[in-house]
Amino acid sequence: MSKTIKKIAVLTSGGDSPGMNAAIRSVVRTCAFLDVECLAVYRGYQGMIEGDFVPMNARSVNNIINKGGTILKSARCEEFRTPEGRAQAHQQLVNAGIDGFVVIGGDGSFRGATIFNKEYDFPVMGIPGTIDNDIFGTRFTLGFDTALNTVVEAIDKIRDTASSHNRLFFIEVMGRDVGHIALNAGVAAGAEEILIPEENLGLERLLDSLKRSKKSGKSSSIVIVAEGDKTGKNVFELKEYVEEHLPIYDVRVSVLGHMQRGGCPTAYDRVLASRMGVVAVEALLSGKTNLMVGIIDNEMTLTPIEEAIKGHTKIDRELIRVSDIMTV
Amino acid sequence: MSKTIKKIAVLTSGGDSPGMNAAIRSVVRTCAFLDVECLAVYRGYQGMIEGDFVPMNARSVNNIINKGGTILKSARCEEFRTPEGRAQAHQQLVNAGIDGFVVIGGDGSFRGATIFNKEYDFPVMGIPGTIDNDIFGTRFTLGFDTALNTVVEAIDKIRDTASSHNRLFFIEVMGRDVGHIALNAGVAAGAEEILIPEENLGLERLLDSLKRSKKSGKSSSIVIVAEGDKTGKNVFELKEYVEEHLPIYDVRVSVLGHMQRGGCPTAYDRVLASRMGVVAVEALLSGKTNLMVGIIDNEMTLTPIEEAIKGHTKIDRELIRVSDIMTV
Amino acid sequence: MSKTIKKIAVLTSGGDSPGMNAAIRSVVRTCAFLDVECLAVYRGYQGMIEGDFVPMNARSVNNIINKGGTILKSARCEEFRTPEGRAQAHQQLVNAGIDGFVVIGGDGSFRGATIFNKEYDFPVMGIPGTIDNDIFGTRFTLGFDTALNTVVEAIDKIRDTASSHNRLFFIEVMGRDVGHIALNAGVAAGAEEILIPEENLGLERLLDSLKRSKKSGKSSSIVIVAEGDKTGKNVFELKEYVEEHLPIYDVRVSVLGHMQRGGCPTAYDRVLASRMGVVAVEALLSGKTNLMVGIIDNEMTLTPIEEAIKGHTKIDRELIRVSDIMTV
Amino acid sequence: MSKTIKKIAVLTSGGDSPGMNAAIRSVVRTCAFLDVECLAVYRGYQGMIEGDFVPMNARSVNNIINKGGTILKSARCEEFRTPEGRAQAHQQLVNAGIDGFVVIGGDGSFRGATIFNKEYDFPVMGIPGTIDNDIFGTRFTLGFDTALNTVVEAIDKIRDTASSHNRLFFIEVMGRDVGHIALNAGVAAGAEEILIPEENLGLERLLDSLKRSKKSGKSSSIVIVAEGDKTGKNVFELKEYVEEHLPIYDVRVSVLGHMQRGGCPTAYDRVLASRMGVVAVEALLSGKTNLMVGIIDNEMTLTPIEEAIKGHTKIDRELIRVSDIMTV
Repeated sequence: MSKTIKKIAVLTSGGDSPGMNAAIRSVVRTCAFLDVECLAVYRGYQGMIEGDFVPMNARSVNNIINKGGTILKSARCEEFRTPEGRAQAHQQLVNAGIDGFVVIGGDGSFRGATIFNKEYDFPVMGIPGTIDNDIFGTRFTLGFDTALNTVVEAIDKIRDTASSHNRLFFIEVMGRDVGHIALNAGVAAGAEEILIPEENLGLERLLDSLKRSKKSGKSSSIVIVAEGDKTGKNVFELKEYVEEHLPIYDVRVSVLGHMQRGGCPTAYDRVLASRMGVVAVEALLSGKTNLMVGIIDNEMTLTPIEEAIKGHTKIDRELIRVSDIMTV
Repeated sequence: MSKTIKKIAVLTSGGDSPGMNAAIRSVVRTCAFLDVECLAVYRGYQGMIEGDFVPMNARSVNNIINKGGTILKSARCEEFRTPEGRAQAHQQLVNAGIDGFVVIGGDGSFRGATIFNKEYDFPVMGIPGTIDNDIFGTRFTLGFDTALNTVVEAIDKIRDTASSHNRLFFIEVMGRDVGHIALNAGVAAGAEEILIPEENLGLERLLDSLKRSKKSGKSSSIVIVAEGDKTGKNVFELKEYVEEHLPIYDVRVSVLGHMQRGGCPTAYDRVLASRMGVVAVEALLSGKTNLMVGIIDNEMTLTPIEEAIKGHTKIDRELIRVSDIMTV
Repeated sequence: MSKTIKKIAVLTSGGDSPGMNAAIRSVVRTCAFLDVECLAVYRGYQGMIEGDFVPMNARSVNNIINKGGTILKSARCEEFRTPEGRAQAHQQLVNAGIDGFVVIGGDGSFRGATIFNKEYDFPVMGIPGTIDNDIFGTRFTLGFDTALNTVVEAIDKIRDTASSHNRLFFIEVMGRDVGHIALNAGVAAGAEEILIPEENLGLERLLDSLKRSKKSGKSSSIVIVAEGDKTGKNVFELKEYVEEHLPIYDVRVSVLGHMQRGGCPTAYDRVLASRMGVVAVEALLSGKTNLMVGIIDNEMTLTPIEEAIKGHTKIDRELIRVSDIMTV
Repeated sequence: MSKTIKKIAVLTSGGDSPGMNAAIRSVVRTCAFLDVECLAVYRGYQGMIEGDFVPMNARSVNNIINKGGTILKSARCEEFRTPEGRAQAHQQLVNAGIDGFVVIGGDGSFRGATIFNKEYDFPVMGIPGTIDNDIFGTRFTLGFDTALNTVVEAIDKIRDTASSHNRLFFIEVMGRDVGHIALNAGVAAGAEEILIPEENLGLERLLDSLKRSKKSGKSSSIVIVAEGDKTGKNVFELKEYVEEHLPIYDVRVSVLGHMQRGGCPTAYDRVLASRMGVVAVEALLSGKTNLMVGIIDNEMTLTPIEEAIKGHTKIDRELIRVSDIMTV
């Protein structure tokens, strides 16, 4: 039988994403609403191991719903991967009287949580916070919508200068293992071609596509490339390749980089974060554990963390088709 | 048996919404991709009646995916509500050799389309373009996501000045019949209270909520009010009411107005528009008619237009609960 | 001989404006850099009278340079207009060991400062923080550039919908006594006509201008109206007037309102605020008093506060001419 | 005696910058207002050599005031650097009956214009359009304000993630020869250190500054690096250097790249462009030639092009001091 939960901890872990603060706020305020104590853990699992806890009340999270990053700081923590690290973390939680925690992060953070849950039968709940949208069990992860808009706004700017100079641009966006950002941004920004980790359409196809585009009278072209693009070439190598094989373009490269992780969260990410925090706390209080909150068809769902981290979400193959049609 | 479709018209009708241009682009390019002729109709049904048509090719819609408004102009058209008006429109379509049309608009525009379809057995397909998100048969309408973000950004700005002066703000947002914008914006912007057309929680509750907020130490408060708010009071009357019954606040009013309809569409609205245009054209070509394209759980759907216009979508009651918890 | 300044207070007063936080940060950090103590006064002169002071160090102002509003809160204070109020304020400053203060605000705030300076021979320095840009002795006030961009972005959005529907819009912007925002925003947004407090071109001219615009083939028109517009008609009355005298337009109205005061300050306002804070503190330390920091031709200047509040800055008549030419 | 000017050409040349379209619009409309014919030259001097001209009227430039890039396209043109190329360009201008031209561009474009003016006694007028703000004879060039805001918004986003992870970021911004963007963006974004082409403060100073910052309790740091930074190290080399000599930081790099050139122009750039276009046309009509329009202390000025291209504008040394104080 599960112990009554009277004190909950909340932490952010791994890479940060926009909407994490809104989720922290939601967890803290739901605790306040339900008269449960809430502690914040600073710097992810590292802070848990070190007992870096601070009590939170409803007012502690004023004015953070629209802030990028995470006020609790985040970190990747090697120590928590060891039994010794987790033992120390457990001791700290016990000392502080914490009965369960909500971790906001990606699959690495969830892996730690589920191991911890198993080892110590400790109630844990996950909220998927990552811009990559690669977590199984939820249509959208926190931060994906914001990152996508950041990318699209940057491409819009680059397009201004691309079309003023009849240039071809290779633009690298985040996504080592999944192409969600690349594919959606490519469609939203009207990219000529989109290179993603999920499939290799071949460099021949790229050249054909660029030739067809030039022929059709387009004055400039944008190719979106996910970090983990399956061609195996990064944007600089792609530039060289095209300059060598199709010397009709003035080719430029842009790597969007870390700005994709920051920024004021969109309305969608703020609403999603608010909903997820409520569900996470209520699930813990009702005795559930080792689950991840998700959203599917606009309904809140709970998925066993172990399933959530098993595989990546599939990209939307229909979007590849839409992209092909749009670049007619 | 349905006639083969060789020429498709596209028009925007009713109030404009961000993403309409992206949808026009998608319809035009899908036609080009599938070797179907495409004509644009200017100024909605009015232009149809007057035969204000222009041929479109893939290049006609360059550089519009990120533009607000509609390059085809839009209008509300009384004449199309009469049998004579529709007869004339039909004649114009026949004269121009048009075999079917895609109308991008709201429920008024769909009502016209379905009547027209019945009268003349003319193939029509609808794409829901309205910021209100009030169309049955789709989770999201084109423009809703953009309008929501516009509203939230405006409220963020007002909050800056509200919290600098310890003020209470009533902010009116669009939504005569449905409270989707108000409810989502209220949660996303951390509003103290949200007044919507769907339910009247009573003015007593508003006063209680404001008193509790003041007591809890909050320095400022924001109340979001949908145009069609059920209390029957508009923002100016609400201001007076609160000043009379709770004279502890410096109360201000802001009506966001028409800026909510404009602006560069978000990534989501651009992707949605691109997907919807493809499905609309393909559905017409496959012999389907009198349907509206929608998105449910991220899958494209087709709903009989007559069902789509029967009733408004329900607001998400869970969001009301989330809002209550967040304002603890 | 002036007393050595060892402790400086900083406050914001009157209407808030974007950049105030950046100016607070600059005053605080310049004090830290020069080893002078710094106290913050909350809620303007009201907080001064009540002794609502908090010590500040360099870290107290982390992460505020890009925040709208003012972390010190602001207020208009009737009590400070009385000798008794000022006497109490003086006592509080003396009790706290404060040797001089920097007030960030508009002409009302400066009026109080200069009277206080005379009565108590107390060192004061002003930083012009107001979106109206109406202070003599500086080319730009803090917040003007941000407010102007906020207005222009809103008009860009309204133009999307205006041109989709062939409409005429009257848009009210801030500016009771001066038309700087209206005039600059009107030119930047390509308005058809701009109505300002400084001169009454007559309603006839407005009608002529709108007729000419319609005739020239423009599909929509935007008229910017400053709050204190000299025609004496507000936007709603102007709408009625035009509908009566020129019934060829579908006329709409938008009042931009308080969102103009908020928002993340532009780069220009942040740099200006940083520069002004340094000069204000250094001037106080060098024994100067009763001056306002300004910028003229990109150089920092000091103007006697009494001169700064004497009259408003003139609008740039050349801009009226530019606007006339642009609407050809 | 100068010939009467009856037909004016306008072109954009060299790297594009936001505000160029607003300047084109202003030149075209001023011509329309003054009943002078106006032709657009496509693709800069290349289009001039090829006679790629299009007549413009007031309506040709509708809805471009807020668009980034240049609708006339731009290019760098080697051929115009040769006497033969210029001879051909002159012939084209003569054939088209053009009496003078306005070139919007940077110092390379001006160099061509002034040589052309000398060789053919052909009336030319320059408008400084470049994001670098490096043209002598004007306080601000077209596009600088927009680029600066783009950079600052990107850094704000990077700061979110930097401070969530206690990281040090080197951010490369544009500026091969001048550090205006770097210096202003650094102050506006609260950078720890700013490396510019104008002076080499030494890598020792950088390390000291970073050590001091760490010691003072700052959790993250941002260093802005202009492309042409005097240390001779690019951002990747700086990262390596710091990792080797100060291994207390998790160091990351971001190169902002071409997005800095694009985007919707700010209010300031739109107003400036509108003013400059008027002055350029009026100056040509009054018989002046070989001058560049500029703005100094908010007044329009005319500077001989030969002086304008002689040297770069000096950076504002006071801003270096302000930056030092702000990073206390």
